[in-house]
Amino acid sequence: MTIILDDQQQVAQTWFAELRDQICAEFEKIEAEAGSDAAFEYIPWDRENPDGSPGGGGIQGLMKGKIFEKVGVNISTVGGMFSDEFAGQINGAKDDPRFFATGISLVAHMANPHVPNVHMNTRFLCTTKRWFGGGADLNPAIPNEEDTEEFHARLRSACAAHNPEYYPRFKKWADDYFYIPHRQVHRGVGGIFYDHIELDHESDFDRHFAFTQDVGRAFLDIFPKLVRKRMNMEWTDEEKEQQLIWRGRYAEFNLVYDRGTAFGLKTGGNVDAILMSLPPEAKWK
Amino acid sequence: MTIILDDQQQVAQTWFAELRDQICAEFEKIEAEAGSDAAFEYIPWDRENPDGSPGGGGIQGLMKGKIFEKVGVNISTVGGMFSDEFAGQINGAKDDPRFFATGISLVAHMANPHVPNVHMNTRFLCTTKRWFGGGADLNPAIPNEEDTEEFHARLRSACAAHNPEYYPRFKKWADDYFYIPHRQVHRGVGGIFYDHIELDHESDFDRHFAFTQDVGRAFLDIFPKLVRKRMNMEWTDEEKEQQLIWRGRYAEFNLVYDRGTAFGLKTGGNVDAILMSLPPEAKWK
Repeated sequence: MTIILDDQQQVAQTWFAELRDQICAEFEKIEAEAGSDAAFEYIPWDRENPDGSPGGGGIQGLMKGKIFEKVGVNISTVGGMFSDEFAGQINGAKDDPRFFATGISLVAHMANPHVPNVHMNTRFLCTTKRWFGGGADLNPAIPNEEDTEEFHARLRSACAAHNPEYYPRFKKWADDYFYIPHRQVHRGVGGIFYDHIELDHESDFDRHFAFTQDVGRAFLDIFPKLVRKRMNMEWTDEEKEQQLIWRGRYAEFNLVYDRGTAFGLKTGGNVDAILMSLPPEAKWK
Repeated sequence: MTIILDDQQQVAQTWFAELRDQICAEFEKIEAEAGSDAAFEYIPWDRENPDGSPGGGGIQGLMKGKIFEKVGVNISTVGGMFSDEFAGQINGAKDDPRFFATGISLVAHMANPHVPNVHMNTRFLCTTKRWFGGGADLNPAIPNEEDTEEFHARLRSACAAHNPEYYPRFKKWADDYFYIPHRQVHRGVGGIFYDHIELDHESDFDRHFAFTQDVGRAFLDIFPKLVRKRMNMEWTDEEKEQQLIWRGRYAEFNLVYDRGTAFGLKTGGNVDAILMSLPPEAKWK
C-alpha cells in the first residue's frame, strides 16, 4: 500500500529500483552466456500497518538459474511505527516510534562451489533521524585469495573516493558483524558493513547518498567479474558437499544473528522476501 | 569435567542415561529389522566454566541409518553460573546465578517422509529452585491423523496417571510453544510440553520424577510403533521434496525460537550436540 514520500525518500527509492534493474539485467546476461534462459520472477507484496494505515511494500525478485542456483534481489519501501520493545533498539526511535525505510537487499547462492556467494544491501532509514546503511560481503564455500582480494580492492576504492576512514572502519565492522559466535568462525571472507551514516544537516543527503550509490555500483562492477571468472570451473562431489555444509552455517547466521532478518520479521515484512536469503539446499552433519 | 551431584541429581542423571540406553537399543533394533547395521556413535564432551571450575559435560549419540536418516540422542549434566543477562530470565536464578541441569534430548529426522519425525526432551533443573521439565512432539512432513491420535493418546494416558490437569495443560503448552510466528504455522502436530514442575518440598521429588520417567517410557512405547507402521511405505520424489521444504521450517523454529537451543548456546554447551537437532538436509524455495 502506497505511502507518501518526501523528496529524499523518493530519490533514494528511485535509485534502489534502478540499481535492482541493472543488477538483474546483468545476472540474466550471465545466465544467457551459460546457455540458460533463466529470468527473474518479480513478486510484489503489500504491507499494512496494525492500525490499518498504508505500510508500503516491496517487490521480491527471484531467479533460479544454471549459474545462480538461487538469487533474490528485493526492493522495499515501508513505513509505520515500531513496537515499543523494538523502538528502544533503533536509532532515533526511542521517543517517537515512527519509521520509514527504503532499500535493496540481495543474496546469491551459486550452483558452482568455486563461485563465491554474495550478499549486498543498502538502505535509507528515517526515524527522528535519517541515515544510510548497508554493505556487501563475499561468502565463498571454497575461499580463494585472489577473489577475496579483488572484491575488497573494489570496495576499498569506492570508499576511498568519499572518506579515507570509511574502508578500514567498515571492513572491521563487517568482520565483527558477519561472525558466528557459537562456531567461532566468520560466515565468509568479509567486505564492508556500515550503518548510521547520518544526515546531520539537510545538505548531507547528497554526499551520503552518493556514497551509498557508489557501493551499489562497486558491487555491480566486481561481482559479475568474479562470477564469469569461476563459473566454468569443474567441481567434485566433495566440493558440492562442502558447499552444502557451508550453507548450513550461512542459514545459522541469518536465522540466529542477522539484524536485518530480525528487523523484517519484527516489523511484519514479507516472510518470503525476508527469508529469500536462505539457501536453496543445505546440509548439517 | 565431573561435578559433584547430590542424591536427587544423581538419581535423575542415572535415569536419563538408562532411558538413553533403552531408546538407542530400540532404534538400532529397528535399523536391523530394515536390514541395516547402523549403530549409534557416542561422542563425549566436557564443559569448563569461564572461571575454570568443572562444568560437567555430556555424551552426544548420533546414528545415520536407513530408517533414521539422522537421529541424535544426547545426555548431559552441566553446572555453573548463568551470565547476568541470562540469570534474570531463569526461574530462581535472579539473585543467585548458580545452576545445575541434567537431561536427555532427542531429535529424529526420518528418511521416509511418511514416518513422522519426533522430538523428546526431559530434564531436571536446579537453581535456588528445583524442577522438572520436558515434553515430546511429533513432526510429520506429511501429517497422518491416525499417527497423531495414537501419539497424543499415549501421552494422555501417561499424564492421566499423575494429574488429570496435566494433559490438557501440557498439550496446550506444546501448541503454544511449537509455533512459528513468522509463518503462522505450527512446526508439527504437537504433543506435550511442560516446565517448572517444582519441588515445593523435598518429598515432591519422587512423584515429579516419576512423572518425568513416565513421559520417557511413553515415548519409548509409542514412537517405535509409529516408525514400524510406516517405515516400509513407498514415497514419491514430490513427497521427499515436501519433506525437505518442511525440514527448512523445522530449522527456522529451532534457530530462531527454541529456548533449549538458546540455553545451550548461551551457557557454553557443546555446539555439535546442541545443533544435532538440525536436519541432515533441508531446502528453501
